[in-house]
Amino acid sequence: MSWVGRDKKSVWHPFTPLKGVDDPIMIKRAEGVYLITEDDRKIIDAISSWWVNVHGHSHPEITKAIAQQASELEHIIFAGFTHQPAITLAENLLSILPSNQHKIFYSDNGSTSVEVALKMVIQYWYNKGEQKSKFIAIDGAYHGDTFGSMSVGERGDFTRPFFNHLFDVEFIEFPTPSNLDKIKNQFLDLLKSENIGAFIFEPLVQGAAGMRMYDATFLAELISLAHNHGVLCIADEVMTGFGRTGKLFASDYLANTPDIFCLSKGLTGGALPLGVTSCTKEIEDAFQTTDLKKAFLHGHSYTANPMACAAANASFELLQKLDCKKSIELINRCHMKFAKSIKSQPIVKDVRVLGTILALEFKSANDTSYFSEMRNQLYPFFISRNVLLRPLGNLIYILPPYIITEAQLNEVYSAIEEFLIERA
Amino acid sequence: MSWVGRDKKSVWHPFTPLKGVDDPIMIKRAEGVYLITEDDRKIIDAISSWWVNVHGHSHPEITKAIAQQASELEHIIFAGFTHQPAITLAENLLSILPSNQHKIFYSDNGSTSVEVALKMVIQYWYNKGEQKSKFIAIDGAYHGDTFGSMSVGERGDFTRPFFNHLFDVEFIEFPTPSNLDKIKNQFLDLLKSENIGAFIFEPLVQGAAGMRMYDATFLAELISLAHNHGVLCIADEVMTGFGRTGKLFASDYLANTPDIFCLSKGLTGGALPLGVTSCTKEIEDAFQTTDLKKAFLHGHSYTANPMACAAANASFELLQKLDCKKSIELINRCHMKFAKSIKSQPIVKDVRVLGTILALEFKSANDTSYFSEMRNQLYPFFISRNVLLRPLGNLIYILPPYIITEAQLNEVYSAIEEFLIERA
Repeated sequence: MSWVGRDKKSVWHPFTPLKGVDDPIMIKRAEGVYLITEDDRKIIDAISSWWVNVHGHSHPEITKAIAQQASELEHIIFAGFTHQPAITLAENLLSILPSNQHKIFYSDNGSTSVEVALKMVIQYWYNKGEQKSKFIAIDGAYHGDTFGSMSVGERGDFTRPFFNHLFDVEFIEFPTPSNLDKIKNQFLDLLKSENIGAFIFEPLVQGAAGMRMYDATFLAELISLAHNHGVLCIADEVMTGFGRTGKLFASDYLANTPDIFCLSKGLTGGALPLGVTSCTKEIEDAFQTTDLKKAFLHGHSYTANPMACAAANASFELLQKLDCKKSIELINRCHMKFAKSIKSQPIVKDVRVLGTILALEFKSANDTSYFSEMRNQLYPFFISRNVLLRPLGNLIYILPPYIITEAQLNEVYSAIEEFLIERA
Repeated sequence: MSWVGRDKKSVWHPFTPLKGVDDPIMIKRAEGVYLITEDDRKIIDAISSWWVNVHGHSHPEITKAIAQQASELEHIIFAGFTHQPAITLAENLLSILPSNQHKIFYSDNGSTSVEVALKMVIQYWYNKGEQKSKFIAIDGAYHGDTFGSMSVGERGDFTRPFFNHLFDVEFIEFPTPSNLDKIKNQFLDLLKSENIGAFIFEPLVQGAAGMRMYDATFLAELISLAHNHGVLCIADEVMTGFGRTGKLFASDYLANTPDIFCLSKGLTGGALPLGVTSCTKEIEDAFQTTDLKKAFLHGHSYTANPMACAAANASFELLQKLDCKKSIELINRCHMKFAKSIKSQPIVKDVRVLGTILALEFKSANDTSYFSEMRNQLYPFFISRNVLLRPLGNLIYILPPYIITEAQLNEVYSAIEEFLIERA
């Protein structure tokens, strides 16, 4: 039986209907921007494999770091013990995070980094003896797929079967130029009337909701209001971290600084699962006690896995290089130029750019939605042209590894232009 | 500054109070059963680094598999694409799981493997149009630290700050020889009166609750009752899987087979984070639709990470070897002999063995509990003798890598005997 046949017999893929979809494509190797199929097709990974890959696939520096770490110290329990890769990574992260960030707590992915943030907030107030256990989130939010991270996410078709199992959260409208005053009043009312513990958001851009971008000044104002009412702020930078938006963190665009950061995806350069939740000294202080019942009793077996930390440290070194900064700027310039060139096309509803992210929304019969049938035309069109662009319904986005060249970017743009012409 | 000083400045460790605990021990290398400190102390890892390590640290076969995989295909998106390590691992797992297990869904750790199981159950009934969304769990259960997995866990000091954020679950008493009839009636009442979707349990032994062991025949009877009432059964084999209890899975001791299995910990041989949730064809069938809204919309960026799958495949090969089976039997024989030799000691409340697990409960002023102060004497006593035994309150357990030798086991036993004599 073929590999694909064997896959279909035994594997259930994430976010994939079991009927009516094309067979999965068998990948034997990945290198730079390319996914290389069984039959030697080279597909450009224009979405960085779900937004994780920053320095290209199978990067030699990251590969070397993992292999070396595997042979010395593959993994040990992280309670009562520590190791160099985890300490170095914590220091590396604190050196680039806003200066109010003080401690690093490790977990295994983006969802768990959010679960840890939510638990830190709840227990922060609990340890202080205050009843502030409610969260404010933004309509359309996506923070992960575990029950806590689903709870602070949009109530919609992603999570409908689980509504009764999610805890209660207050949602404010997604900020657009026309509703800012309304949201501000709504936000203030919540801060005054409810027992709000924290405000959680994807800074500047909501990913899964359709790369929806919103104003940094307005977000900073909400953070300021929250802080004035003694409410903590959680920046979910799982997608936006590590240069994705043009600055190291999307929060670097903000005049006010969040109290907690959630990191994953780009953290290890796209090599291994790892999550990080960082927090301020003020938050840590509420846990400064010998009382085991007030300790943060959270942990996963593979917390601070040395290989994942080693990969993250190698990725950090690459990210610090001038070459990487220049690449991020180049991608941004190319995106801006391309966006300008296509924005007036008849089937283009909107095209927007932030840092290395370009989002292109097509006109469709219904509202923009993950569930738009248009995905079923878009995805195969680009795959047949050896470009991986995984649509969010009637929207596509380019979110490439930073090592992508101008020529490779142009291949992606050309495929999109071809689609625009074909459907014009 | 020393590594430990740097650690204390930047790292927040899991399950660790921030005050009143000893400094973490800096580990530079790990090999076989040993954690090797900065100053070349060799500490026997008698708990397999939180129950994950089965073949010893930095095992050359696993190291080789990871290094090779890292250079070929480190990671790609697992929606729309597939790869050999994930397919092979799914086939390997299905070849040793009970024959009713049909499909493998990947995630990143034990908590997420449980979250996936809970979501599969809820959506299974949702897709079939039935209102069966409640779970039955067992008092003392530990299924992980995310909100869903906490919800099906014991309501106690581990999760007290989060009670209001956990969904409602029905709990039955922990089975002991004296309450079986009572539990059976309680269980039957729940099956008849509530909208129960599934029964979730740690088969044969509850880990975090204190390596509490219970009867396989009785558990099989509960599974049978559940099945007779159209209720699904989830075996959380995160700790018990991969030979830990003497058989490949604890469920192999059961006359009736669960519908869903949660696996992690030993899955990769202790090298990398990876979770698996397997299920029956009946469950998968409820998702056999082209309707995206009925698809299982769950996934993590690093789902089916090729390096983690490669490590798991290497670990699987080692587990299948006769040597490994013989080692598991040897550990069991040694444990049984040691248990017999100490059970009448004055401060021993109970000593019990299941497969490679030996649990030793000390008499203490209060009931056996994770929060017993006795942990603060036990842990440093054994660490000072170069043995890592991480107590659950007034209880210690040995849960060693399978490659431990009889001589190394005897070192662990001797340290325990020394403690027994000192405190007699």
